[in-house]
Amino acid sequence: MAGRQDQSLGHLSLLGNQHTKYTFEYDPSILEAVDNLHVNRDFFVKFNCPEFTSLCPMTGQPDFATMYISFIPDKKLVESKSLKLYLFSFRNHGDFHEDCVNIIMNDLIELLDPRYIEVWGKFTPRGGLSIDPYTNYGKPGTKYEEMASHRMMNHDMYPEKVDNR
Amino acid sequence: MAGRQDQSLGHLSLLGNQHTKYTFEYDPSILEAVDNLHVNRDFFVKFNCPEFTSLCPMTGQPDFATMYISFIPDKKLVESKSLKLYLFSFRNHGDFHEDCVNIIMNDLIELLDPRYIEVWGKFTPRGGLSIDPYTNYGKPGTKYEEMASHRMMNHDMYPEKVDNR
Amino acid sequence: MAGRQDQSLGHLSLLGNQHTKYTFEYDPSILEAVDNLHVNRDFFVKFNCPEFTSLCPMTGQPDFATMYISFIPDKKLVESKSLKLYLFSFRNHGDFHEDCVNIIMNDLIELLDPRYIEVWGKFTPRGGLSIDPYTNYGKPGTKYEEMASHRMMNHDMYPEKVDNR
Amino acid sequence: MAGRQDQSLGHLSLLGNQHTKYTFEYDPSILEAVDNLHVNRDFFVKFNCPEFTSLCPMTGQPDFATMYISFIPDKKLVESKSLKLYLFSFRNHGDFHEDCVNIIMNDLIELLDPRYIEVWGKFTPRGGLSIDPYTNYGKPGTKYEEMASHRMMNHDMYPEKVDNR
Amino acid sequence: MAGRQDQSLGHLSLLGNQHTKYTFEYDPSILEAVDNLHVNRDFFVKFNCPEFTSLCPMTGQPDFATMYISFIPDKKLVESKSLKLYLFSFRNHGDFHEDCVNIIMNDLIELLDPRYIEVWGKFTPRGGLSIDPYTNYGKPGTKYEEMASHRMMNHDMYPEKVDNR
Amino acid sequence: MAGRQDQSLGHLSLLGNQHTKYTFEYDPSILEAVDNLHVNRDFFVKFNCPEFTSLCPMTGQPDFATMYISFIPDKKLVESKSLKLYLFSFRNHGDFHEDCVNIIMNDLIELLDPRYIEVWGKFTPRGGLSIDPYTNYGKPGTKYEEMASHRMMNHDMYPEKVDNR
Amino acid sequence: MAGRQDQSLGHLSLLGNQHTKYTFEYDPSILEAVDNLHVNRDFFVKFNCPEFTSLCPMTGQPDFATMYISFIPDKKLVESKSLKLYLFSFRNHGDFHEDCVNIIMNDLIELLDPRYIEVWGKFTPRGGLSIDPYTNYGKPGTKYEEMASHRMMNHDMYPEKVDNR
Amino acid sequence: MAGRQDQSLGHLSLLGNQHTKYTFEYDPSILEAVDNLHVNRDFFVKFNCPEFTSLCPMTGQPDFATMYISFIPDKKLVESKSLKLYLFSFRNHGDFHEDCVNIIMNDLIELLDPRYIEVWGKFTPRGGLSIDPYTNYGKPGTKYEEMASHRMMNHDMYPEKVDNR
Amino acid sequence: MAGRQDQSLGHLSLLGNQHTKYTFEYDPSILEAVDNLHVNRDFFVKFNCPEFTSLCPMTGQPDFATMYISFIPDKKLVESKSLKLYLFSFRNHGDFHEDCVNIIMNDLIELLDPRYIEVWGKFTPRGGLSIDPYTNYGKPGTKYEEMASHRMMNHDMYPEKVDNR
Amino acid sequence: MAGRQDQSLGHLSLLGNQHTKYTFEYDPSILEAVDNLHVNRDFFVKFNCPEFTSLCPMTGQPDFATMYISFIPDKKLVESKSLKLYLFSFRNHGDFHEDCVNIIMNDLIELLDPRYIEVWGKFTPRGGLSIDPYTNYGKPGTKYEEMASHRMMNHDMYPEKVDNR
Ligand SMILES: [Ca+2]
Ligand SMILES: [Ca+2]
Ligand SMILES: [Ca+2]
Ligand SMILES: [Ca+2]
Ligand SMILES: [Ca+2]
Ligand SMILES: [Ca+2]
Ligand SMILES: [Ca+2]
Ligand SMILES: [Ca+2]
Ligand SMILES: [Ca+2]
Ligand SMILES: [Ca+2]
Ligand SMILES: [Ca+2]
Ligand SMILES: [Ca+2]
Ligand SMILES: [Ca+2]
Ligand SMILES: [Ca+2]
Ligand SMILES: [Ca+2]
Ligand SMILES: [Ca+2]
Repeated sequence: MAGRQDQSLGHLSLLGNQHTKYTFEYDPSILEAVDNLHVNRDFFVKFNCPEFTSLCPMTGQPDFATMYISFIPDKKLVESKSLKLYLFSFRNHGDFHEDCVNIIMNDLIELLDPRYIEVWGKFTPRGGLSIDPYTNYGKPGTKYEEMASHRMMNHDMYPEKVDNR
Repeated sequence: MAGRQDQSLGHLSLLGNQHTKYTFEYDPSILEAVDNLHVNRDFFVKFNCPEFTSLCPMTGQPDFATMYISFIPDKKLVESKSLKLYLFSFRNHGDFHEDCVNIIMNDLIELLDPRYIEVWGKFTPRGGLSIDPYTNYGKPGTKYEEMASHRMMNHDMYPEKVDNR
Repeated sequence: MAGRQDQSLGHLSLLGNQHTKYTFEYDPSILEAVDNLHVNRDFFVKFNCPEFTSLCPMTGQPDFATMYISFIPDKKLVESKSLKLYLFSFRNHGDFHEDCVNIIMNDLIELLDPRYIEVWGKFTPRGGLSIDPYTNYGKPGTKYEEMASHRMMNHDMYPEKVDNR
Repeated sequence: MAGRQDQSLGHLSLLGNQHTKYTFEYDPSILEAVDNLHVNRDFFVKFNCPEFTSLCPMTGQPDFATMYISFIPDKKLVESKSLKLYLFSFRNHGDFHEDCVNIIMNDLIELLDPRYIEVWGKFTPRGGLSIDPYTNYGKPGTKYEEMASHRMMNHDMYPEKVDNR
Repeated sequence: MAGRQDQSLGHLSLLGNQHTKYTFEYDPSILEAVDNLHVNRDFFVKFNCPEFTSLCPMTGQPDFATMYISFIPDKKLVESKSLKLYLFSFRNHGDFHEDCVNIIMNDLIELLDPRYIEVWGKFTPRGGLSIDPYTNYGKPGTKYEEMASHRMMNHDMYPEKVDNR
Repeated sequence: MAGRQDQSLGHLSLLGNQHTKYTFEYDPSILEAVDNLHVNRDFFVKFNCPEFTSLCPMTGQPDFATMYISFIPDKKLVESKSLKLYLFSFRNHGDFHEDCVNIIMNDLIELLDPRYIEVWGKFTPRGGLSIDPYTNYGKPGTKYEEMASHRMMNHDMYPEKVDNR
Repeated sequence: MAGRQDQSLGHLSLLGNQHTKYTFEYDPSILEAVDNLHVNRDFFVKFNCPEFTSLCPMTGQPDFATMYISFIPDKKLVESKSLKLYLFSFRNHGDFHEDCVNIIMNDLIELLDPRYIEVWGKFTPRGGLSIDPYTNYGKPGTKYEEMASHRMMNHDMYPEKVDNR
Repeated sequence: MAGRQDQSLGHLSLLGNQHTKYTFEYDPSILEAVDNLHVNRDFFVKFNCPEFTSLCPMTGQPDFATMYISFIPDKKLVESKSLKLYLFSFRNHGDFHEDCVNIIMNDLIELLDPRYIEVWGKFTPRGGLSIDPYTNYGKPGTKYEEMASHRMMNHDMYPEKVDNR
Repeated sequence: MAGRQDQSLGHLSLLGNQHTKYTFEYDPSILEAVDNLHVNRDFFVKFNCPEFTSLCPMTGQPDFATMYISFIPDKKLVESKSLKLYLFSFRNHGDFHEDCVNIIMNDLIELLDPRYIEVWGKFTPRGGLSIDPYTNYGKPGTKYEEMASHRMMNHDMYPEKVDNR
Repeated sequence: MAGRQDQSLGHLSLLGNQHTKYTFEYDPSILEAVDNLHVNRDFFVKFNCPEFTSLCPMTGQPDFATMYISFIPDKKLVESKSLKLYLFSFRNHGDFHEDCVNIIMNDLIELLDPRYIEVWGKFTPRGGLSIDPYTNYGKPGTKYEEMASHRMMNHDMYPEKVDNR
């Protein structure tokens, strides 16, 4: 088995670690990065995260969402197990839907300094309504800033059919 | 449980209020707003509302629709429980499909002064035909006005398959 | 245009009547029957009713369901416009989901004295849960009574996928 | 090209006939039969007919349905082009949904004297309700009569999802 | 019940009229218009029409299609019941698929003088092929003319999967 | 608003209670019952519960499932808000998938003494595999015990397509 | 790579043979069998065959179908490449839909002497109708003969939705 | 039956011709054109062709595809029955997938001199891979040439999910 | 976190073990069992396994399948991580589809001595055909043996639609 | 059988070769090219590859993905059987998801020197998350370089619904 060298991964504290401790209080320090081996190229990485859960800040009851996180890396990729654990850390955390997607994006910008990133949360309904916040970001002063505007302008012109079943 | 502070929500009259009174006559004063904590950024909030019902102004019989409401907030977000109650207030109100979406959008513009907003109603058929009105708005004199034109020009080029079953 | 003779339909008060009055308080007297022209044969009639709405008896807020009503007629069929108006009459009526399906079935038994009947309501979720009550009936002392037991015993062994979206 | 011999088909008046005359008034004499070459065996033939249209006997407006016709032949199969033309003959004919499926089945019993037959019509909604009548028949005094009872008793225990769109 | 005032609808000859006469020969005079109450705004109205049927001009046999009609109104909306009756009037009319969509669009342009309009017909297959003509129009000399070009240039880049079943 | 009388619901501690306290440690005492008003009849009540989450007893990481709970009541129905809170109480509880469904069923038997009950959990995959345990129960010495055997014998003969996406 | 021994497959003339000659005239001699290594057990083998095509015996034009072939083997399995080539041999062969499924089943009974077998063809529509013949067989004088009756009696009680698109 | 006049169709050799001869060797001379009655307007015509089959040039075995053919006509439309017969003529013809779509487009350009045309073939898998070639063309020196570039640049950014089942 | 006690799991060699060694040659000794805590009850456990891959014994090329494994345990459950690793061990193993499902079932019978078990493999197509073998087993001399016959007799009467895309 | 001449394919070492040797260690030398016969035209070729599997570089366990590979050829097409074998060669190779798509694209650029190419991998989940990397390339200094930027900027604005089932 050849490919990405194991040594390039030695600094990671989580991958393959049996005695992982799960944190259910919001903790952005969980996030870890790995090197992007293809910095000469723009490419997208998307994480599909259908197992996101947090608490409603007003009532304390659980909220559930699928988070779609997409970015064009610069020098860093997010290590996927650390992303999983980071998302787990919202489990007993209370915030509005609109806040969660912005916080997740802010933390990933802080970690990765990506060229472009976007986060879309699709929540299950409460009281017959469901809420799907979407936020994005392009590195200021680059073409990716324009890209963020362009994608915001064209966002979700075909809302998926939702019938609460 | 940390996150959005409870005190920032104290002015809300509806959230978590047990003795909610449901109004089934059109009443835009039901709508309430909360502060947008991320004004530095453009982001979208979409409400999926599959439980909209009103009355036909000609025959008095019930109409049913799914409403998709999306906006880019400026200083205000709409509080979701108040939006639910506002939509309930169409229950015994009579208006044409085309009028309902424009009225809902007008009321949310009045409440939120959003950067951008759009409302798409998808109604169930009467006499073998169904009607899906779509309206939008961008704050005049800003780039969001252009955004509204752009989205209108590119609206719904892939109509969903409808076979009345 | 031949077929079912118009005169056989003359007693109906609703069909094709322009000045229909819509009643939004529960009223089983709205229901009307027509003659079954094929009494020599068992056959099923199913009504798909995706536009059912009532009120929650505890909170007063609207509930939404699709009602599936199926029966084997004896001497009478339910006239479809009267069924529509009858279902409208739950619009401002408050009852539990489990009660609604039993009430609807009771009223149709009263009207039609059918050989067999069943009612299945599939409601939209409240608080992350949705409820789907199902009830049935076969004329006592006939093979249809057994049929009801048989169908109850085999009911819904493949629950549809529900993800609240 | 071998297989079913052309000569065995010579009596058919419709198949491949260019100057077909389309009749839009109900006419069961259009139906034609061909020999069943596999009488030693029970087998099913199903016709999927999504292009059925008739007129409402009360209002005169068009109704639309998909008809599913399935039978176990005895000595005869229905010739498919004649079935198509027969179904066309309902185009300007007025009858209730429940009557249409029984008439179609009666005419095919008359033509084919089949071992078993069933007809299921799934109509598009009027006023928010749709109606799906189902009827069946097994040759009296044979095991197919029991088969008809068995299939009636187990009919449609998983109603398809219908949301009128 | 408030909302659109009944008096503003008094001139309509069809809506709610019990004794509707159905015309099954092409007749564009059936179409009626109502005032657009939101002329200050661009908005789309889409009609989903899955019950369109006409006759093949060569063979006389019935054709079936779903028509999707979308427009941005100027001063007029099409009254929906009159549109239904107008589409019924193709029932015994013979024309090619490509002609039907252009005729429907021409008649609605004549009636409504809309800012923008498009018509897409999706027909059921004959001989293993199905045909989906699409046409559009923007008011000459306005930005809507460009809009029509833009939408034509970007039309249907993701053809829906069709397998004739 | 008529229907189920409010007074019959007065003993319930949870329904409509604003200051609900959410418990995230397994606690079957949360469950509450209401009277079945239709004891003369067998009918099914199904709860669709797509927001179930617990912890893996070996690794401590979150598991996610949709729970389908169906029963034929005897004298009692489960109050739906208490069921929701009970399911919440698994949030920080660790148990195997096979244990969870059996525990839930045992607790509901204890609460309701139902004629028949079944619980089916459909979990998201771990390591490329997902697990769907199903358990059921019929009151011993009644026909419902046979019903449980019958439904176990015929359980899930058409496994849903699962491709982990 | 262990498992089924290559030598047990040496008599096969087709598997892995580069210079396969494709025959497009019906030829049942193409079929080859391999030993069933699990004769002590009843098990099903299903072949999904969506690429079946033959010619209409009346008009000579191509027909298309998906064939579903399922059987419980006795001493022999059909070798899958030979089945593919056998089905290819209908390519320029003309026969009615009802005949094709019976011929295929007869040829496989001749080859395999199976305990049980069934063949279901689902054809694409001609003139708006599609035909789906189904036939089956159980070894006479065994429990599989009853099995064939049982499956015929319960065949296709949930016809798939067909809309010719 | 009015509409497109029969006389305008008199030169066609195929439409409604009973004694059609089917050619299964590639023959572009089969194609016939009819006049475009709407030359003043750009409109699209799409043919959905799910019954395309040819032979692999290397192995001789059948290939299957759905062909999607879309064009903006200039003075001519392709007559649909001739297109069907032309596509049949690939039945015993051998060519690579990439070649087939280009040949079909070339032949239609030759016949119709269209303003714009595109052909997309979606083939069934061989060896676990499937191939979907797409080609297009705009009349050189017109805006349709740009249109072709634009559509190529934006082609298929959302590949449909393919799992070979 | 309470629930299943950790100590009851101490003998397991794989669960949570970081230094798992993956074996890609068939090795049934990988399988491990855990105690069934609910032996007083019949319940089903289903494993959905969409990531099964083996090698074709004739050509050596990879095959892919989804395996559905369902059983009613007696004293033992299969530990899920060991099942995953066992299925991995087919990765470089060559066997016919029909053999794979029987081998997997035999190994699980050996490990678990279950009351009932069944295995259904759904493979991707080769040469346009796909094969779906299904096998089952009930403990001899118990009612589960009859259950196996019953489920075999009623197996897969609604084959899923397969079109190789 | 005419069409692409056999002699033009004589140099290929793999197509139709019975004694294919399968390599399960990464080996880009397996790839072979054939001439593009339509160099005068831009056209797309897409390969749908749902049977991709590699090993995780950290844990050694298998990963599974569907690879979508699309390109506009210049002088060369990739021969499809060689592409299949090349993708097989990742079977026992370890690399991160993000690396796999970039390596595949690099190797195809090396082989084909295409005008444009893109590779999208959609992987099955690990730990509840799935990862979908996408990369693209346009020949530097040509309009295809811009095309790559354009497609990156507009990539995947409608993420498919992923729920891990
Ligand atoms: Ca839904
Ligand atoms: Ca729905
Ligand atoms: Ca439908
Ligand atoms: Ca759903
Ligand atoms: Ca629907
Ligand atoms: Ca539909
Ligand atoms: Ca298909
Ligand atoms: Ca289809
Ligand atoms: Ca799936
Ligand atoms: Ca369809
Ligand atoms: Ca279809
Ligand atoms: Ca799949
Ligand atoms: Ca598929
Ligand atoms: Ca498919
Ligand atoms: Ca889901
Ligand atoms: Ca899924």
